[in-house]
Amino acid sequence: MPTIVVDVMPKAELLDPQGKAVTGSLSRLGHGAFQNVRIGKRIELTVDGDVTDAVLAEARTIADEILSNGVIEDVVSIEVVE
Amino acid sequence: MPTIVVDVMPKAELLDPQGKAVTGSLSRLGHGAFQNVRIGKRIELTVDGDVTDAVLAEARTIADEILSNGVIEDVVSIEVVE
Repeated sequence: MPTIVVDVMPKAELLDPQGKAVTGSLSRLGHGAFQNVRIGKRIELTVDGDVTDAVLAEARTIADEILSNGVIEDVVSIEVVE
Repeated sequence: MPTIVVDVMPKAELLDPQGKAVTGSLSRLGHGAFQNVRIGKRIELTVDGDVTDAVLAEARTIADEILSNGVIEDVVSIEVVE
């Protein structure tokens, strides 16, 4: 069944405390190559049937209004995976 | 600066309570086209310098050992984004 993948990340201008904690841990553990870590969500929506333009538009609406909080998060991508 | 994106999802054979809750909400709100929702993590690692094979191998190790819990999660993709 086709799956729509929605990626949501904290807005670039906001502090991401979870990511900051991981950045600190990586550095302490000797993985200094990674300067910054940000952690967001990957949401997989399984579609019953074909992914029509209408379904994709509905997914976009859901992503903006239900799956993400527009005040602190950005929907960075919406893509269809078979 | 180049960014390595690591996607982590709950294992397919495990129940994802967060996703199940969203599936129920979507259905109640009239978005019946989406049969199943699973929620995972999208982690962006910013790399200081070039993404060499060594850095990518280190990212793979970090993804498996630190960023995901192998008992309940799978690393589904690791890709480099400029």
